[in-house]
Amino acid sequence: MLKKVLIANRGEIAVRIIRACRELGILTVAVYSEVDKEALHTQLADEAVCIGPAEAKESYLNITNILSACVLTGADGIHPGFGFLSENPRFAKMCTECNIKFIGPDYESIELMGNKAKAREIMKEAGVPVVPGYEGIVENADHALKISNEIGYPVMIKASAGGGGRGIRVVREKSELKLAYDTARAEAKACFGDDTIYIEKFIEKPRHIEFQILADDYGNVIHLCERECSMQRNNQKVLEEAPSTFLTKELREEMGEIAKKAAKAVNYKNAGTIEFLVDKNCGYYFMEMNTRIQVEHPITEMITGIDLVKEQLKIASKMTLDITQEDIKISGHAIECRINAEDTKNNFRPCPGKIEELCMPGGMGVRLDSAIYCGYKIPHNYDSMIGKLITYAKTREEAIAKMKRSLGEFAIGGVITNIDFQYWLIQQEDFLKGEYDTSFLAEKMVNKNA
Amino acid sequence: MLKKVLIANRGEIAVRIIRACRELGILTVAVYSEVDKEALHTQLADEAVCIGPAEAKESYLNITNILSACVLTGADGIHPGFGFLSENPRFAKMCTECNIKFIGPDYESIELMGNKAKAREIMKEAGVPVVPGYEGIVENADHALKISNEIGYPVMIKASAGGGGRGIRVVREKSELKLAYDTARAEAKACFGDDTIYIEKFIEKPRHIEFQILADDYGNVIHLCERECSMQRNNQKVLEEAPSTFLTKELREEMGEIAKKAAKAVNYKNAGTIEFLVDKNCGYYFMEMNTRIQVEHPITEMITGIDLVKEQLKIASKMTLDITQEDIKISGHAIECRINAEDTKNNFRPCPGKIEELCMPGGMGVRLDSAIYCGYKIPHNYDSMIGKLITYAKTREEAIAKMKRSLGEFAIGGVITNIDFQYWLIQQEDFLKGEYDTSFLAEKMVNKNA
Repeated sequence: MLKKVLIANRGEIAVRIIRACRELGILTVAVYSEVDKEALHTQLADEAVCIGPAEAKESYLNITNILSACVLTGADGIHPGFGFLSENPRFAKMCTECNIKFIGPDYESIELMGNKAKAREIMKEAGVPVVPGYEGIVENADHALKISNEIGYPVMIKASAGGGGRGIRVVREKSELKLAYDTARAEAKACFGDDTIYIEKFIEKPRHIEFQILADDYGNVIHLCERECSMQRNNQKVLEEAPSTFLTKELREEMGEIAKKAAKAVNYKNAGTIEFLVDKNCGYYFMEMNTRIQVEHPITEMITGIDLVKEQLKIASKMTLDITQEDIKISGHAIECRINAEDTKNNFRPCPGKIEELCMPGGMGVRLDSAIYCGYKIPHNYDSMIGKLITYAKTREEAIAKMKRSLGEFAIGGVITNIDFQYWLIQQEDFLKGEYDTSFLAEKMVNKNA
Repeated sequence: MLKKVLIANRGEIAVRIIRACRELGILTVAVYSEVDKEALHTQLADEAVCIGPAEAKESYLNITNILSACVLTGADGIHPGFGFLSENPRFAKMCTECNIKFIGPDYESIELMGNKAKAREIMKEAGVPVVPGYEGIVENADHALKISNEIGYPVMIKASAGGGGRGIRVVREKSELKLAYDTARAEAKACFGDDTIYIEKFIEKPRHIEFQILADDYGNVIHLCERECSMQRNNQKVLEEAPSTFLTKELREEMGEIAKKAAKAVNYKNAGTIEFLVDKNCGYYFMEMNTRIQVEHPITEMITGIDLVKEQLKIASKMTLDITQEDIKISGHAIECRINAEDTKNNFRPCPGKIEELCMPGGMGVRLDSAIYCGYKIPHNYDSMIGKLITYAKTREEAIAKMKRSLGEFAIGGVITNIDFQYWLIQQEDFLKGEYDTSFLAEKMVNKNA
């Protein structure tokens, strides 16, 4: 087993990792930026090393300083958490070169999955469904029509250089294609100076459903079922639940096997997530793989009883996975609400500040993963997420009732948070019915603000 | 279902009950004494009524004021929690007379179980093992010898009027009996002015193991397995765990059935606990029944997944128990540490005061039932227990590791607590081995302080 782990992260995930290490008897080293001297992760770890100024690139993204802290403290492993350096293959490679165990997959797997075109190619070869599309460059309008007829409507015409929704056209039938192609090209040229176009199937109002994977160094790969992450705002997840209300047992098993296939195709090790888009006809398409622990991992822990961060540490310690696919049984229902210091009435503007009053929810089936305490000053330099409130109960209805109760008693004074927003969200009829997709929140917010 | 419940209690159990009510959609009324205006239960409830001065007999024991608050707010049920009026048959009876549902058993059951001699008699009749003893008064030394020979040594000679350990002699063999009888009698006469003596079997280093019962109004009675409560100091529980490391599956089933028999013998309804003394040969003896929810109920909730307070509310609402004995499956292991504001180095003197700093443990498998917050002033008028830290994991070892980690990160500034004491306790070898009985802590403390 690893003896001392440096956590190259901050906030609740750093605290989460310290907790798992401590329960396994592993010593911990926190690294912190100058504004994080009083942060909970800095205080809770066995040792703490300052690695630079507040700005992330000077500290939490500063590979040299982090590796130096590792050498200095004699840590034999680094847990990258999520964000920051967690999906940086160069960092993973440098850890290995310094003889420090990077707690995650091999850098090659990170690299492969980080290249979206390459990942798509590998997945197709492995028999993992990807969004149907033309791999090459579209030559002209006739070519576009031919491709679209083959893919089947609706299709999406996209600028290769695109971003921010520019240069994108959804085409619902043949007759609309030429005009859409021409305008998309013109827009792409105007916006990006590059009119290269590609075409793929348009997945209408998809659900975002992802499968958790665990894989050890010895070829054992299991999936821990899915997380429903369709509740998003600007592609940012807001609330997650497990299991998904949408999947049947059969579809869950099928997608789980496909997810394992995807992981095996890149010789994946440690914890990872295969993200799928799922259309209303139960068609599912590989979107990407997250080669790290995810924010929403606790809901999987609640319904399976498996501590994913402990499993990460055990796998990184070269232990054989002692859980088989048959051991994985879904029990109950879990929901996670991300708690952000943000003003939901003001375009979700981040609202850092000092927590002057704090009353945390508790009791049966309530889990709080956070790094806040009364008197803590949330710095403005990082992400606005300050915690995750997770509820767990036998049924979805009970888990929602518990979330409502917990959000209701969660009181944070001194900073503006999204607690009231989450309280509103979980009472929306479509959410209560479990009928929502990734477009839900955008549509709902228009109505809410109208 | 009940519509509005008044909670005739304070502290963490009042908060616990408010949480259960809220998750079931039941409105809540808190009652509070003048010093509890800022208490969490007062703040969290839908309504709050001041019922008198700090002294319990003026407020939390003031039946008239509590019933008035109930009438005033239109509450249709009263939950008494534990302590205070929870086992007062007169209060239960008055609630019924006022047409307010007392959330607990009928007053007759409380009355029967409250009379220890009567309870012993009923249990014997029902075939529930009680500590073997002579029912009548011992006439003289020869009579004492005859009785003791029949019971079998060791026996305990006790002053009927006794208390505080006075007038008690343990006799391990026949030859010691006469002297012990004479001195116990003399001491009883001197201390209590009454030399009436009775004799019962001495249970050496017993374990305190109790069974949780649920019973509805329609004759359905189930048990939810046991709680191991042998970790005691001066007959006060300090730490509890479930399941017990001592019981075999067979003994668990047997004692569970006996516990159900005991409950049925008094026509018991709602949640209750049958407490047993268990000797090292697995002999078990009915001690008493607690006709209320208990402090340590959460550990049963963790290993069975059943919310006992919700079940209480459902039973009180005349619902049929929808859980059968076959549904009860133990899963994992749970430990509870009582967190008290007390100075363990100074004879466990209560230490009320203001909480100036607070960092609560969290994460997977950690449950905190408390009523504290940063800035809360613990009044000196009530019990020193300010919360309960519960950990849950697949195995006992993991649950202990989790408790150690959680106690380690639990920081309360401004008041002295027993957190360090609990941290010490859970690392004791005999505890780790699961080999301890009710004498453990007294013996250990002597060594600790020596």
